[in-house]
Amino acid sequence: MTNDQHGQQHVRTVWWEEDAADASSSAFVCLVDQTHLPQRVLYLRLAHEEQVAEAISSLRVRGAPAIGVTAALGIALGLCRLYSERGASLTLAEAYAHVQEVSAMLKRTRPTAVNLFWAIERMLRCAEQVVQAQETPWQLVSSLRAEAQAIADEDAAACLAMGKFGADLIADGDTLLTHCNAGALATSGIGTALAPMYVAHAAGKRIHVFVDETRPVLQGARLTAWELQQSGISLTLITDTMAGHFMHQRSIRAVFVGADRIAANGDVANKIGTYSLAVLAQAHDIPFYVVAPCSTVDLMLPSGEHIPIEQRRPEEVTTVGGVQVAPDGVHVANPAFDVTPRHYVTAIITEQGIAYPPYDVSLQNVCAHSIAHGKV
Amino acid sequence: MTNDQHGQQHVRTVWWEEDAADASSSAFVCLVDQTHLPQRVLYLRLAHEEQVAEAISSLRVRGAPAIGVTAALGIALGLCRLYSERGASLTLAEAYAHVQEVSAMLKRTRPTAVNLFWAIERMLRCAEQVVQAQETPWQLVSSLRAEAQAIADEDAAACLAMGKFGADLIADGDTLLTHCNAGALATSGIGTALAPMYVAHAAGKRIHVFVDETRPVLQGARLTAWELQQSGISLTLITDTMAGHFMHQRSIRAVFVGADRIAANGDVANKIGTYSLAVLAQAHDIPFYVVAPCSTVDLMLPSGEHIPIEQRRPEEVTTVGGVQVAPDGVHVANPAFDVTPRHYVTAIITEQGIAYPPYDVSLQNVCAHSIAHGKV
Repeated sequence: MTNDQHGQQHVRTVWWEEDAADASSSAFVCLVDQTHLPQRVLYLRLAHEEQVAEAISSLRVRGAPAIGVTAALGIALGLCRLYSERGASLTLAEAYAHVQEVSAMLKRTRPTAVNLFWAIERMLRCAEQVVQAQETPWQLVSSLRAEAQAIADEDAAACLAMGKFGADLIADGDTLLTHCNAGALATSGIGTALAPMYVAHAAGKRIHVFVDETRPVLQGARLTAWELQQSGISLTLITDTMAGHFMHQRSIRAVFVGADRIAANGDVANKIGTYSLAVLAQAHDIPFYVVAPCSTVDLMLPSGEHIPIEQRRPEEVTTVGGVQVAPDGVHVANPAFDVTPRHYVTAIITEQGIAYPPYDVSLQNVCAHSIAHGKV
Repeated sequence: MTNDQHGQQHVRTVWWEEDAADASSSAFVCLVDQTHLPQRVLYLRLAHEEQVAEAISSLRVRGAPAIGVTAALGIALGLCRLYSERGASLTLAEAYAHVQEVSAMLKRTRPTAVNLFWAIERMLRCAEQVVQAQETPWQLVSSLRAEAQAIADEDAAACLAMGKFGADLIADGDTLLTHCNAGALATSGIGTALAPMYVAHAAGKRIHVFVDETRPVLQGARLTAWELQQSGISLTLITDTMAGHFMHQRSIRAVFVGADRIAANGDVANKIGTYSLAVLAQAHDIPFYVVAPCSTVDLMLPSGEHIPIEQRRPEEVTTVGGVQVAPDGVHVANPAFDVTPRHYVTAIITEQGIAYPPYDVSLQNVCAHSIAHGKV
């Protein structure tokens, strides 16, 4: 648990540790292994960049912003490790080549969340500047470590800003629905979709959250339910089959979800099942809010049609916690994400403000500040 | 596996067995224990009516028509057992009182599926006639055994009739979606929602079925996927979160589901998640068909609002096959059914024909034959 600038406690997801801040230091990327939650709270201290790649691809760390932060830390770790092995014999050209290799490896871990590519590109730009200035290899280590930490710190600050903007949309007594985990466990801060709930709760608003279990990987049941419990926010866990029923019963006042990639026109790629919820919300006149930092907005992508959708292993569907739930040899589909067309989205809440339709205009405006400062 | 009148193989779900058809016989209600599927195909041979009640309440046998058949067989079993214990000392009044007690116990097993109450009422009417005619206790045994078998046989015939009517709505090459299990495992015959698929498949139409896993009890993954595999019908298993995505991708041409109770106005109570699918189907202009025998139609009930919805144990949501998937102490909602308002239903396929809107007229007409023959 860690305290944010509001003094609010939240789960700590991914961070940097090192034994000494000099050339001989051992550095680590630390994270809570989310594949064991909620039964075990197991922290990993990763010393090698390949372990970082494995942690991302096997969902030990997940959530679009957290993946970006972890990849950035992984690139810094890779160079720190090489530098501590090679010391003075390491040339700037070798160091830069290694940064490029690690970046390429990390880019292959997951295809859908744009934050991964955004964070890696930002680290590569940072490296390029050091190389162009013909600084020392140690300067490259130092700059990349600082850049990765800046990405993590900016992410935490963005979460808080999204939380404040989003909390204005939550009234005392509201019952909300969320899907998957877009909370502290998905970021370096208090989350994206859950951030408005944390801020509203801290401000004394009484809220209740319906949490979709989110098959197949059960991020809702395993992560969001656990995370909200830790924070003392009242919740009801439901299966994904129940969301429509509770909307029909008028039990849900608004839906808040995160995003893995948002196209320039406002189409949103997010965890599989998000699209169904958006259609259901519209059919019941329930506002459907997407909460994501500007780093999730891919202004280069005109619409959601071209977002690559990760297809994952059939075993995620046919087994639960090692228990087989389907017959042998059954054919399975397992897309990890779906795309929700913009006309189902009531608003997109970013750290720079709230974008409303038409998104092709509003997203440009809202994210302009980040673009001007070179963060996107 | 058993053969229907088309020579088609299907899974055998529930049936009557006895060692000898005389007064000293031992009788059994036999069923495949669906809580162990698909890992184990375990058959139960139940000798006591209390075991039958337990089998219904713990979902060893489930599916609205199968529950009705099982309850009818359970009443016959209860009296057979008492008669074989008491022999000539049993009076008609004692026998009738026992039938009423067993009926009351079986009525308490599950609240939503009307077929349960329908079958029990029919058995009670049969018993009443024997009592009014002042026949022998053995005649009561014999009549109830015959009535229960008639209910099972009529159910199998109704499945076939529904299959034929429904198959006309399926074209060669169609991809269909189904929810929960409304197949052979839910009836004495070839099922309700799956019956049109069996008939279309037997007629040589190439079909493919998307099967929702149907959390929390996973009847889709465990039962429907297994049952369709046994029959050689091509299928794709998906999580409940994926149905909307595949509708949006235009991968689904029609939805077929069963029903646990249909009100006189056409509102349909069925497995939780059905309502969401109906809303999604309408949003994508996909026909949404409900397949159920006239015994599922409750003409006494003006609308779906008053259908009692069974609330089941939270452990069905928090665990899967004994594995915990949610944190300790989490609050859970677990309604087993939801109600789909009639305006989402394209047609209701019964054994007497297909009812189209307005259902308050068409259901009366379609089920008139059954009513005239005293079957409803």
